[in-house]
Amino acid sequence: MSGSAPAYPKLQRTGQAVPRKHRSAFTWRGVRLIFEPRVPNFAGITISAPTAGKDRRMADQVATNITWHEHSVNKDDRAKLNGHKGALLWFTGLSGAGKSTVANTVDHLLHQKGIHSFVLDGDNIRHGMNKNLGFSAEDRAENIRRIGEVGKLFVDAGIVTTTAFISPYRADRDAARALLDEGEFVEVYVKASLETCEDRDPKGLYKKARAGEIKGFTGIDDPYEAPENAEIVLDSDSKGIDELAGEVMTYLEEKGYFSA
Amino acid sequence: MSGSAPAYPKLQRTGQAVPRKHRSAFTWRGVRLIFEPRVPNFAGITISAPTAGKDRRMADQVATNITWHEHSVNKDDRAKLNGHKGALLWFTGLSGAGKSTVANTVDHLLHQKGIHSFVLDGDNIRHGMNKNLGFSAEDRAENIRRIGEVGKLFVDAGIVTTTAFISPYRADRDAARALLDEGEFVEVYVKASLETCEDRDPKGLYKKARAGEIKGFTGIDDPYEAPENAEIVLDSDSKGIDELAGEVMTYLEEKGYFSA
Repeated sequence: MSGSAPAYPKLQRTGQAVPRKHRSAFTWRGVRLIFEPRVPNFAGITISAPTAGKDRRMADQVATNITWHEHSVNKDDRAKLNGHKGALLWFTGLSGAGKSTVANTVDHLLHQKGIHSFVLDGDNIRHGMNKNLGFSAEDRAENIRRIGEVGKLFVDAGIVTTTAFISPYRADRDAARALLDEGEFVEVYVKASLETCEDRDPKGLYKKARAGEIKGFTGIDDPYEAPENAEIVLDSDSKGIDELAGEVMTYLEEKGYFSA
Repeated sequence: MSGSAPAYPKLQRTGQAVPRKHRSAFTWRGVRLIFEPRVPNFAGITISAPTAGKDRRMADQVATNITWHEHSVNKDDRAKLNGHKGALLWFTGLSGAGKSTVANTVDHLLHQKGIHSFVLDGDNIRHGMNKNLGFSAEDRAENIRRIGEVGKLFVDAGIVTTTAFISPYRADRDAARALLDEGEFVEVYVKASLETCEDRDPKGLYKKARAGEIKGFTGIDDPYEAPENAEIVLDSDSKGIDELAGEVMTYLEEKGYFSA
């Protein structure tokens, strides 16, 4: 490839019909964009791409195809360079269950093994990309949606990425899973009873929630929907951080995540 | 570190006062969050963190400190594993200047050199993380803001990341630069005259913009604010893709970006 521009294989994808009343459409850089965020199971965007060549023309009707360029360096190329595939380890569980601590310990163990890894958590997400989001139900959903999208980019870059967020709603977690290819999304349920978490209460939050000082607190006055088919379930009631982190590492090793 | 939980050094940061009338405040997981998106030059968030220990307590007034955990694997650790530092190569220029093509070619050359790299562009950002953004002035600014934040995460992960967006406003690009440490942000101005771009018009967009079919098109009825101090200026009027990509590679090599 050196000395010449990279080749761009074309991808084609069939769109899905959306009721016209739900659509909001406009034109951007020669493609017609039709947004529909409220129709379930719809990717949210349909693009009517012009045909190739000089006489490309706007389509007047809703598109049935998306055409785009693929990067010249693909996911397999990046996996080969790294010596392993990318994956998204999605830690979920109650506040105080130990998500962040286990996730960071796993990240540390991965790094020691020479695996390219990264952690997305409240520190670098809530202070950065999502600092314009609050804690309404809508904003929480958008918070998780963006984290899923960024996680997907990191996986495409070949990184074993861990996220550590309560992510209490099953639908939000499943939406993140749906962004990724088979096997790339590893749901890690850090399971601890409410009693355990409330007893630990490392940040004094449960006490505040019980006192009504914090509203909409997961496990108290907002639900936590436990995963039904998590790839890994960690028993945080009775095991320590290092044992739990070790279980994640064993899973990844056995499933072949440490090889390209 | 194996066999014990990672140590978390504490960071402290001094906040900035914000007029009370602009604030919107609430409590999340034991920290008081005060948002103010409309005050210029304010980071958008001030956090009043409780003091460490069991008797941590909510502060009633606006905080002057942020306390958070640092990841156990830091940026230097990741640079050592990769054999090079992370960086954000920010390509900017008119539609048709060649940003995306040069960026992808650079990405390809980086990969061939064994550099861990990734491209953020319209394809993977506008179809993913930013699919809920339109093209109003506000949405364009938010588009660039999120790209800057994601770029920063990628740099923290040790990736040489390229972005390819028109990003016409100087203030938006400078805000992205401000997120990163000295030397991490490399602005690449893909310079081509409007005449050149309009003559190339690879997507037929200028023709549509001239015909009034596209509104707010950069260079026609929306301004492009050329960089004043770009690290790299590429003369896309008179040079080809491979020569331009080569100039970027030479810059990176000479400035030591290919070593840890």
